[in-house]
Order: sequence, then C-alpha cells, then structure tokens
Amino acid sequence: MKTFGKLLLVFVMFFSFAEAAKKYRIKLAMTWPSNFPVFGDAVENFKKYAEEMSDGRLNIRIDSANKHKSAFGVFDMVKSGQYDMGHSASYYWKGKVPNTLYFTTMPFGMTAEEQQAWFYYGDGMELMDKVYSEHNLYSFPGGNTGNQMGGWFQKEINSVDDLQGLKMRIPGFAGEVISKLGVNVTNIAPGELYTALDRGTIDALEWVGPSLDLRMGFHKVAPYYYTGWHEPATELQFLINRKFMDKLPADLQAILKNAMKLAAYDMHTQSNHDSGINWESMKKEFPNIQVKTFPAEVMNAIKKANDELLVEKAKEDPLAAQILKSQADYLNQIRPWTIMSDYSYIKSLGQ
Amino acid sequence: MKTFGKLLLVFVMFFSFAEAAKKYRIKLAMTWPSNFPVFGDAVENFKKYAEEMSDGRLNIRIDSANKHKSAFGVFDMVKSGQYDMGHSASYYWKGKVPNTLYFTTMPFGMTAEEQQAWFYYGDGMELMDKVYSEHNLYSFPGGNTGNQMGGWFQKEINSVDDLQGLKMRIPGFAGEVISKLGVNVTNIAPGELYTALDRGTIDALEWVGPSLDLRMGFHKVAPYYYTGWHEPATELQFLINRKFMDKLPADLQAILKNAMKLAAYDMHTQSNHDSGINWESMKKEFPNIQVKTFPAEVMNAIKKANDELLVEKAKEDPLAAQILKSQADYLNQIRPWTIMSDYSYIKSLGQ
Repeated sequence: MKTFGKLLLVFVMFFSFAEAAKKYRIKLAMTWPSNFPVFGDAVENFKKYAEEMSDGRLNIRIDSANKHKSAFGVFDMVKSGQYDMGHSASYYWKGKVPNTLYFTTMPFGMTAEEQQAWFYYGDGMELMDKVYSEHNLYSFPGGNTGNQMGGWFQKEINSVDDLQGLKMRIPGFAGEVISKLGVNVTNIAPGELYTALDRGTIDALEWVGPSLDLRMGFHKVAPYYYTGWHEPATELQFLINRKFMDKLPADLQAILKNAMKLAAYDMHTQSNHDSGINWESMKKEFPNIQVKTFPAEVMNAIKKANDELLVEKAKEDPLAAQILKSQADYLNQIRPWTIMSDYSYIKSLGQ
Repeated sequence: MKTFGKLLLVFVMFFSFAEAAKKYRIKLAMTWPSNFPVFGDAVENFKKYAEEMSDGRLNIRIDSANKHKSAFGVFDMVKSGQYDMGHSASYYWKGKVPNTLYFTTMPFGMTAEEQQAWFYYGDGMELMDKVYSEHNLYSFPGGNTGNQMGGWFQKEINSVDDLQGLKMRIPGFAGEVISKLGVNVTNIAPGELYTALDRGTIDALEWVGPSLDLRMGFHKVAPYYYTGWHEPATELQFLINRKFMDKLPADLQAILKNAMKLAAYDMHTQSNHDSGINWESMKKEFPNIQVKTFPAEVMNAIKKANDELLVEKAKEDPLAAQILKSQADYLNQIRPWTIMSDYSYIKSLGQ
C-alpha cells in the first residue's frame, strides 16, 4: 500500500503538471491586411498580452487577409471552427445576421466613452451575446477608432440641396441614411480612392480620421475635412468560436477575455494619440485644409432620415427594437454627463 | 547512468511543477475606507482579474484605511515593504516628493482620454517612473474619475470679485491656485462637509462629480453645480514595491501589470456610467439644480494664476520643468483632435 500510495501521488502530480503545462495553439483570422496600423496593432497587443500572461501556454498565430484571402469570411470561418478566433467589425455581418449592425457604432449615437459604458456597465454585452450565441460565437469589443471624421469633400456643403447628386464613397448603414437625401452613394476599392477623389470620379469620401487618413493622402487632393456624424464610436470586434473557448481551462479563458478587453481599450487610446500626431502633420504640410461641420439644417435632415430608418428596423424584428431602445435610453441617460464634463470644460476654455 | 538520468528528469519535473505552483500572497493597502464605491471597485476588479488569470497563484489581500489606519501612509508603507502594493493618488505625496504632483491631473490640463494617451503612448509612464524609481516603487495609473465638477456653490460666481473672501473647501494644488484670487481655502473632514455647506460655515466645496457626490447629499443644500477646471482627469494610482515585483516570475509580473491597467480603464468607464445614473437621479429629486460655468473673465483669471504657479514650479526643479513641458506639448498636439472629434460632434447636435 505504501508503494502504491507513492506511485499514486507521483501519478497525480505528473497529471496536474501535464494539465498545467498543456499548450493551446490559437489560429486567428483578421479582416485587415498585413501590417495594418492601429487595427493590426490591437491584434498584436492582444497576442502579446495573452502569451506573456499564460507563460506561453497560449500560442496565437495571426493570419491577415493576405494569407486567408477572405477578409469578409471571418464570421463564417470562426463559426465553423476553421479559425478559433477572428478580428473584424460587427457591422460587416449585417447582410448575414441583421442585428449584428448595432454593435459597432450608430449614426448620431454614443461616443466611444459612452458606448464603452453601455457595453460593460449597461446592457451592451448581454445584448451582443444574444445575437452571437445563436451562431456558436462569442463577440467582444475589439478596439475603438474614436469619432470618425465625416470625410473629405471637394466643395462646401451649405444646404441640403448641396447633397443632391453628390457622388460619395460612404459604405454601410450611414450610406443608406444619406442616400435618402439624394447622395449618390458609390463603393470603390480602397486602393483606387485617392485617384477617384483627385480626378472627380467622386466628390467626397469618408475613411476613418487622421489616424488612418494620413497615409491615404486625401488631404493632398481635397480641401474640406468635415467633422463626423455617421460613426461616432467605431468599435472593432474579437470573435471566438464558442466550443473552443468553453473547453479551455478557466484561467486561460480569463486571460483571453482580459487580453481582448485591454487591447480594445488600448486601441482607443492609440487612435487618439495617432490622430493628434497625424493631424498636426497634415496641417503642417497643407495649412489650407479647412475643418468644417455641416450646418444645422443639413444635420437635422440627416438625423431625420436616420430616425426614420431606425423606426423601420425596430418594426422588422423585436430583438432589433430591444437593442435600439437600450441604446437610445442609455444615450439619453449618459449624454447630459458628457456635456457637463469634458464638453463644458473644453467650451469654458474658449472653444 | 540510466537510473540517474531518470531520477534527474523526475527531479527537474518536480522542480518545475513546484515553481509553477508556487503561491504569492500580496498585501495591498488602499487610501480609501471599506466599501468605498468606484475607487474601491477598481481595487476589487484588479484583485479578481489577477487571481483568476493566475489560477490562484496570486492571492491578494486588500486592507482598507479602516484596517491599517494610515490613509496617507500608503506611499511609505509600500516603499518600506510593510505592504507589497497600494492604491491611492499620486498628488497626495507632493509634500514628500514634490514631482509626484504631476501624475494625477492638472488644472486646465488634459482630459482623461488625452492623459491616457500621454501615459501610454507619450512620455507619461517613463517620466512617472523617473520620479518613483528613486523610492523603490513602481507607479501605474489606477483609475480615472473623469472630469471632476467644479463644485457646489451657494451663490453664483459672475465676476472675479465674487471669489473674494469666498470660503471654499478645495484641497491640493487647485486650492493654491484659487487662493491667489482671494478665495479663503479651508479644509474640513469629509464627514462634516454636508453640515458645513448647509449652515454656511463654507460657501462652496468641490468633491468629485455625480458618481460620488450623490451620496454626500450636497445637491440638497446648494443650488449651483459648477463645471470643472481644476481636475479634468483625476487618475488614481497603483503602487508596487519594486523589490517585490522584480522577484516575481515574468508571467505573474505581466498578469499584475495588465490587471492594474485594465482595472484602471474600467474605473473610468464605471465613473462615466455612475455619473450618468446619479446625475439623472439628482435632477429628478431636485429639478432646480442649475449647472453653471464660470464666465470667461473668471476662467481667464484662474488660468493666469495657474500658469504663474507652474512657471515657479518649473524654475524650482529641472525634472518638474521636463514633466510640465512634456504635458504642455502633448496637450497642444492632441487637443485639436479632441475638438474636431467628440467636441465638434456634440456641438453639431445643437449643444
């Protein structure tokens, strides 16, 4: 018995050691190309955090769209288990699962700080899980670009009439909204946008903001940079195959969740940092760039079109209605605080 | 040799297992009393994150000020190793180490998002480490309250003359600034503030903002709630004894660092969330509360006094000069982006 007891002890210790030392290889597919700044940095930060904290028990391989050749196949590839994880944006899946639209950003919606509060302290995470759990997926915030600029314009927009027939690259739901006001919404591949704007094939386009616009060079060919209304808080997304995640030991699940959340917060901070630097550099090179805001008449007309579309969406689906109500209620509750804090502070300094 | 080899293997495996299973007990002293909302939640979140991710190899005991009886002894207790960690605020140590003043928030300084960018992507972390490394300490951001309200006032402030002789509770550097304009700055224990404001012992006080002001009840006894200028981004602080941290295995160091950073980001989000809810509740109970901002004349006078004090600080010490220049340069670079993003967006919605 004594020998048997010793053997059992050795066996149990080996078993525990083997369990604790077991390594997990994670394949992650991202929508972005290789070396894509900011968005790609969020994925690299996530990998670094998870690998360091797990002492190498998690090993993460990142495949860019150059590798997997399916930028907009990330949802399906993670759902099926071809990849364990993905990094993308929820609103890309609206053609497939309409309610995914609401977890990136909404025109006239919450700012990044407000939306982070809705996700983590309001109903955001729970509602997002309702949408994704049916597809064998967990979805988590994946990094916020901050308020996106309204875009680069060749001429000023002084009235709703100026929107009539305007050829603009502005994809997604915001494109649907503004097309109701007569804008001729077109889609053009990213690599051709600069030439299209320069040669007048389009009159305007939106991309992100200074953090990513600088290297696209739009400031060299269009004089007006409009402030945003259409994507006030674009939050990217981490996806995880649910069966894969559920089988991991609890400590590794915690490491993955916290590494994603931290990388997401960091990306928002980096976006602000890079935007500050890049805007300074654009202004130095092209001091005549003018920052403009649509006049109230135009803003009100776009907001009206937006509200009408949201009413339609809410009528189509009870879960859409629930999500939209949660967002509207949350915005109404938190916005007065946003206004009396940072907004009033900056205003009081003479803005 | 064969038997010796086997024995060696068993020995090495046991040794690795023992290393990987070794548990570390961490004692953390916080400046706050037990069950203190928001600030205390940041410490609880940190503990939860670190313990879950380390699978219990880190075990954190949190002592509130009720226990260790030395709210403002946290710096010394962590420096000496009596505690391994602390949670407090850097500006509390300015009497002891003057340059600690600059790592919480500065009047007329950066907002929370701007300051996070300065810490993590600018020179903030490196400069903070310059100050703390001489004291056997690591210092990390510990959670941001967001823009603090300027305070509760019994009467309106319409001119610089109205500040003359005003009795106000406003501690720290902001108190120094405003006393230059004739404000009679007093300090009163937190538990006596409500009565002092109600009975006219003081004419005004500042605390935090709706997230923590609600339970103090000031809205019941003062009609004017002024927007902030003095603490636009109050960042709390985690302290770690340097010798303790440096001896930990690399994975546990990474877990501690990331758990602190995540808990800090989360506290900022929670502050915004709680402020939204609490402000709604104050307004419902007391609909006549008026949110006010000091007029430009008053703001300019306070800013002038602030700038003069900062020039003096910079003259006293080259490291202070370096930190203040880094902050001023960073603010100048990032503020235009803040204005063209969230600020312009909210303004364009009719604020």
